[in-house]
Amino acid sequence: MEFMEGVNRKDTLEISELLAGDYTGKEVKINGAVHTIRDMGDVAFVVLRKREGLLQCVYEEGVTDFDIKTLKEASTVEVEGVVAVEDRAPNGIEVRLKTIKVLSEPTEPMPLAISKWKLNTSLEAKLAMRPISLRNVRERAKFKIQEGIVRGFRDFLFKEGFTEIRTPKIGAKGAEGGANMFRLEYFHRPAVLAQSPQFYKQMMVGVFDRVFEAAPVFRAEKHNTKRHLNEYTSLDFEMGYIDSFEDIMAMETGFLQYTMELLQKDYAKELKMLNVVLPKVDKIPTVRFDEAKKLVSEKYDRQIKNPFDLEPEEEVLISQYFKEEYDADFVFVTHYPSKKRPVYAMDDPADPTYTLSFDLLFRGMEITTGGQRIHDYNMFMEKIAARGMTTEGMEQYLSAFKHGMPPHGGLGLGLERLTMKLIGEDNVRETTLFPRDLSRLEP
Amino acid sequence: MEFMEGVNRKDTLEISELLAGDYTGKEVKINGAVHTIRDMGDVAFVVLRKREGLLQCVYEEGVTDFDIKTLKEASTVEVEGVVAVEDRAPNGIEVRLKTIKVLSEPTEPMPLAISKWKLNTSLEAKLAMRPISLRNVRERAKFKIQEGIVRGFRDFLFKEGFTEIRTPKIGAKGAEGGANMFRLEYFHRPAVLAQSPQFYKQMMVGVFDRVFEAAPVFRAEKHNTKRHLNEYTSLDFEMGYIDSFEDIMAMETGFLQYTMELLQKDYAKELKMLNVVLPKVDKIPTVRFDEAKKLVSEKYDRQIKNPFDLEPEEEVLISQYFKEEYDADFVFVTHYPSKKRPVYAMDDPADPTYTLSFDLLFRGMEITTGGQRIHDYNMFMEKIAARGMTTEGMEQYLSAFKHGMPPHGGLGLGLERLTMKLIGEDNVRETTLFPRDLSRLEP
Repeated sequence: MEFMEGVNRKDTLEISELLAGDYTGKEVKINGAVHTIRDMGDVAFVVLRKREGLLQCVYEEGVTDFDIKTLKEASTVEVEGVVAVEDRAPNGIEVRLKTIKVLSEPTEPMPLAISKWKLNTSLEAKLAMRPISLRNVRERAKFKIQEGIVRGFRDFLFKEGFTEIRTPKIGAKGAEGGANMFRLEYFHRPAVLAQSPQFYKQMMVGVFDRVFEAAPVFRAEKHNTKRHLNEYTSLDFEMGYIDSFEDIMAMETGFLQYTMELLQKDYAKELKMLNVVLPKVDKIPTVRFDEAKKLVSEKYDRQIKNPFDLEPEEEVLISQYFKEEYDADFVFVTHYPSKKRPVYAMDDPADPTYTLSFDLLFRGMEITTGGQRIHDYNMFMEKIAARGMTTEGMEQYLSAFKHGMPPHGGLGLGLERLTMKLIGEDNVRETTLFPRDLSRLEP
Repeated sequence: MEFMEGVNRKDTLEISELLAGDYTGKEVKINGAVHTIRDMGDVAFVVLRKREGLLQCVYEEGVTDFDIKTLKEASTVEVEGVVAVEDRAPNGIEVRLKTIKVLSEPTEPMPLAISKWKLNTSLEAKLAMRPISLRNVRERAKFKIQEGIVRGFRDFLFKEGFTEIRTPKIGAKGAEGGANMFRLEYFHRPAVLAQSPQFYKQMMVGVFDRVFEAAPVFRAEKHNTKRHLNEYTSLDFEMGYIDSFEDIMAMETGFLQYTMELLQKDYAKELKMLNVVLPKVDKIPTVRFDEAKKLVSEKYDRQIKNPFDLEPEEEVLISQYFKEEYDADFVFVTHYPSKKRPVYAMDDPADPTYTLSFDLLFRGMEITTGGQRIHDYNMFMEKIAARGMTTEGMEQYLSAFKHGMPPHGGLGLGLERLTMKLIGEDNVRETTLFPRDLSRLEP
């Protein structure tokens, strides 16, 4: 009988292993994809692409036991050679090849010059050839940083006593209602895809006090803008026993502080590759919605057109204002008008036309919506009635309130938008592996 | 201007804080949900449910500034009192109450006796009242253990150099095809929900070498069994530069070893609550598919009916066999017949009617399917042609192979099934927060 006893350790080395041990002058075995070949005649530079970066290998005729003319870019190989210090090579080392073994070969030449530092191609082309364009090391670096943001979110919230939950994406009713739901047939019953885990995370506050989820949400919005996707990743948390909605903003500030530190620590290579300067998050200004409107109207001589919502242009100006006045990259805009917030939002007792809610703007764009929720069943029923809404399909959700819920609130954060603004991109498709929009359903 | 400067630290204490510091004889402030009230006349025991467990509080007439008759179960409260050692209380401490402040109240009595140690109610009733039934501490403990499994999966794979990815759940074509796809209309185009991230994770091996995803998948299967869900969480990984499909099984064994240790370390309380004995994972036997069939046929005198697939009863017998013969809770069954595996499975060069693939059985049930994939474009095209399949809609996926892919393989693991078998449940709905099956679309 054969047994599996744990991870098979390999004799092939990764870049971090090469850099950690003193392998100079020693023979090593390495695998990777042939990123580029620069053939100089007797000598050729073969750069391997590995998960941790690029590694320069030197082919020398007579020394390397292989015919370099037969090696194709985009092949995958396993090579043996001797490590040498070489300041001009990535990471300061190179491998002087003795052998090359081809593991696989492409059948066609690359449609994109992925080995260039910057892919000189349109977003359209990059998305149409996604499995190839992502092989560019700067393209893939964006998604390492995105990974780091999600790690930061989870690790920070675990530390703060949150429980990770998994809520269904197919349901009978959407959390926000309205027209922007994808509809499907579920065994002869009408169903929708989740716009948000809102109802579920609130129900789970009654169970675990503090919960979070990082998962896809779906919105059938017919916007074809640089900031909208029809499927995106929502980082959601919801917490009970809050004293005010400011506890939610404080928790988000803590998340941002933790995550910027994590990125600096574990993703410094990718930040450098993309020339990212991390934003300051030691303190984030807060401003009331109506006050923010007034401030930018005055400073930038702009008429207030819609008193109940922020236009994208106003988000830009509010960010500009707080950058200029306070050198702030983020700003919390609080107390949104009640009529523009969902029914579950807690109205401000001081003035119920406003809510105890907020958006977080980051470099000109809304990336988070959050706030305190109604926790009292009777108050909830009154607000539902006042809006002329039905409770149909909300029975289970409302039962959580009937049977006691702590004061609570939470937020939802768009991962792709945060990533985009953090790395200085201007289209959310740049920070989505396989975007779904009005025209894109593949790859 | 007001600023947010990080998490608002509270003067209310959590159970772990009470246990870590020496608070005996000291006055503390605590919040929680009133789990039970046992009123003995002059004295009453008020047990609070907090995220970390239960906390006994003692009400005494004349000492506690509150009328206990007005306190309702399922209220949420903030209390002040003095900590005392009490061996008979949960965690060995109790709080002698001075004040009780009610934060929220229920409007109706509980429909379930959630404070009982075991909820004596049907699965049907538990699912119909999900937001309430999960407040039972043993019910919620199942999902802490599930959280631990996902944490183990991610943390282990990060350590092994994997990158976390997020792939779209709406697409033009399913990874496995067939009838079990949920269909929807996507802006006037036909679309399906992802049955698996298979195509995407393979494409991403060409980018990051090693990738994983923990996300929902959707299967419109019309099975109403104890082991099927129509939406579940798939733990997927895919790794390049493998020497053989055994590298995948070895990696899974490493994951199980890491995760059992993590559960023992961080989830001991929940394991104890549910009387879970963790399985041994130091070594996991492997057996060929045809050999496994023969072994159980001989030992249990059972005729082989279907030579190409395992029936659920056979999975049970194979597990029983390896438990009896090797005291093993897990067993890898390898070399499944090619005709029962998807087209991307790598056939065994030694006998192409079998594949270099495996299932992992755990206590009588398949929880994982994995194996080596075809990485050579020409080989892939030949197998597609031999099966009479079309490549329509697979262009982008196949382009990854056209442009070079390393030898690779991976697996998909059903989170709810693994949780179910680990904690000794016999219905996968017991380990799903909000299950989706033929009859359940809510809550």
